[in-house]
Amino acid sequence: MKAIEGGICAVKGVKAYGTKEGKMGLAIMLAKGPAAAVFTRNKVKAAPVVVSGEHLKECGQMFNGIIANSGNANAFTHEQGIKDAISMANLLADKLKVDPHTIGVSSTGVIGRPMNMKWYTDHFEEVFKNLGNTPECSEKANRAIMTTDLVPKSYAVELEGGIRIGGIAKGSGMIEPNMGTMLSFIFTDAKLSHDELQERLKIAVDKSYNMIVVDGDTSTNDNVFIIATGESGRPDMSKFQEGLEKVCMELAKKIARDGEGATKLIEVTVEGAKSVEDARKAAKAVVRSPLFKSAVYGKDPNWGRAVCAVGYSSCDVDPRKVTLEFSNGKDSIKLVDAGIPKSDEATLAKAKEIMGFDPLYVKVSLELGDAKATAWGCDLTHEYVNINASYTT
Amino acid sequence: MKAIEGGICAVKGVKAYGTKEGKMGLAIMLAKGPAAAVFTRNKVKAAPVVVSGEHLKECGQMFNGIIANSGNANAFTHEQGIKDAISMANLLADKLKVDPHTIGVSSTGVIGRPMNMKWYTDHFEEVFKNLGNTPECSEKANRAIMTTDLVPKSYAVELEGGIRIGGIAKGSGMIEPNMGTMLSFIFTDAKLSHDELQERLKIAVDKSYNMIVVDGDTSTNDNVFIIATGESGRPDMSKFQEGLEKVCMELAKKIARDGEGATKLIEVTVEGAKSVEDARKAAKAVVRSPLFKSAVYGKDPNWGRAVCAVGYSSCDVDPRKVTLEFSNGKDSIKLVDAGIPKSDEATLAKAKEIMGFDPLYVKVSLELGDAKATAWGCDLTHEYVNINASYTT
Repeated sequence: MKAIEGGICAVKGVKAYGTKEGKMGLAIMLAKGPAAAVFTRNKVKAAPVVVSGEHLKECGQMFNGIIANSGNANAFTHEQGIKDAISMANLLADKLKVDPHTIGVSSTGVIGRPMNMKWYTDHFEEVFKNLGNTPECSEKANRAIMTTDLVPKSYAVELEGGIRIGGIAKGSGMIEPNMGTMLSFIFTDAKLSHDELQERLKIAVDKSYNMIVVDGDTSTNDNVFIIATGESGRPDMSKFQEGLEKVCMELAKKIARDGEGATKLIEVTVEGAKSVEDARKAAKAVVRSPLFKSAVYGKDPNWGRAVCAVGYSSCDVDPRKVTLEFSNGKDSIKLVDAGIPKSDEATLAKAKEIMGFDPLYVKVSLELGDAKATAWGCDLTHEYVNINASYTT
Repeated sequence: MKAIEGGICAVKGVKAYGTKEGKMGLAIMLAKGPAAAVFTRNKVKAAPVVVSGEHLKECGQMFNGIIANSGNANAFTHEQGIKDAISMANLLADKLKVDPHTIGVSSTGVIGRPMNMKWYTDHFEEVFKNLGNTPECSEKANRAIMTTDLVPKSYAVELEGGIRIGGIAKGSGMIEPNMGTMLSFIFTDAKLSHDELQERLKIAVDKSYNMIVVDGDTSTNDNVFIIATGESGRPDMSKFQEGLEKVCMELAKKIARDGEGATKLIEVTVEGAKSVEDARKAAKAVVRSPLFKSAVYGKDPNWGRAVCAVGYSSCDVDPRKVTLEFSNGKDSIKLVDAGIPKSDEATLAKAKEIMGFDPLYVKVSLELGDAKATAWGCDLTHEYVNINASYTT
């Protein structure tokens, strides 16, 4: 497996394009084949999530493409929202002369405002006529779905034998996916059925998107779609899984690093847990803690906050066995060694120095079992407050 | 029932005093009688929490007093921490010539640093010799336990018939109590057994301290102690419960309002829920949401974030039935009316105006049942990040 350029357009059979103007954006991604998706578990589901779920069921899990917009989440928009989401699918279906149920719909932006359908309709032709399969086309689609994101996020791999998997994603705030995450679109030219895709996607999502936290807010709009065009034939399944997980994890890390206002990525690995569930809960509690996130921003070696978060995560922990280590990837420092805290000046100075690097790696060893998990997050900064104190105004 | 001045010293049989110097502080509270307490559910428990729990068991639940310090949480301090917590109790027990098990110990401050026992020992005499039962003495004890708190927090009531209940509290960050909260000490001159106190305290704590969130971090050190001196005789139990809940709720609200960096108190009431558990989860999800807290700070009428938080709280919700209202206590505005969003300019302008007031009242009606709960929190501000980016340095 090797990383390749080109985003989703690295995958055979995919065409994409998008346009962005202020907060408004429209993207189209075409790919014909079996599709699968995971959606937010928020009980207040956005209209496009509801409509896409229905479409997947109605079309025999075969998609022709996806239409996605930024500028409006089309969430909490009552019956009109459902009508608007269907209209978005119809726009693309009419043009392609296909069953509208074979189109996925996806939205991000402010909640509770009516869709400005005129803007999307007015810009549809411009996007459609530019659809292509170049790296630039992938980036155009990627940029069209950005909100407070600072950078577009894409990742693609080529497996041994030539099969490719590529994805794009957006996500910056309202991020603690409980299933999918914000918007992510993955394509592969492997030949796979819907059932295979759904099963593989679920496993990959649990290790990637479901392990990132920016602010602990689970969105109404989270989705991850995957479509397999089949143009490169059957894959070796374990290699495909490895490749899919790589794409999902890299995209998830990019979302965490681009968390609203973030200056660094925080990667927390919990090992020696009694169960994977325990390890996940503990790792996510640390990356979710506003106190720890603020301390990382300020390079304040207040490591007790990380241990405190593990303690309230509901994972099994024996404080006398815990080891805690900070690292910048080269250099590392133990702050707690088998339960014994190291709070001398030299240790704290070293920890402060390491906290200046991006990313910051945090390792917690519980010594209670063999299970392990990694979660990703970012620091909490003044800029996060700036962005979110005036999002709609 | 009426509110009275004097804090814990309004209660017959209570003496208190404290001293504060920079981040270091020492408080002593004397009261003889049946005692009860609730402690943090964090699995990493601070040494004073462990020691106080043991003491309550060993002394037949009869206390002579409490010694509390700020400047060091004495949490994650290994065996030395336990020794230091016992030494703190011994300091007071030796002076009073009583069994050390009749003394409660309580700490707040940085985690994972050894206690500076010399400072506490050096200042013990000064505090002890000034013990008294004036309102000033209560305030001295109150100020001695402050960390990032901007104001001391006390509240007292007199029940019909003369029985009094008074409490002090501290708490500003690392606040999402799951049992007790930061430090709170309540006294009453009612004559009550330990079992009665414990039962009554648990009910009151669930409605008050357990319903506030500043940052979602559950501390290693949370505690609420209550001691009944008995000097005013047996209370009417329902009136006592009402008075105890009033004291706990007023102190909890003061903690939320004094959340690190806060400019306003947010009171969220969820009604029409299927169960009280559901209502509590939904109300706490809204006051916990960093996105909603930031929006309140910036007076950004981005009300969709409140509805989104209700949706991911795991409480039962039917978006078509939800009503959402913001109020400043006098004026109010409906942002969602039985599922229909109101996002016209006039409504948003009115919401923005109301969001300028302190406190901000948020009411969510689910129309699914009769259960109701209220939670308290505060806005998320630049100052929160300032405080927590450099707490230890």
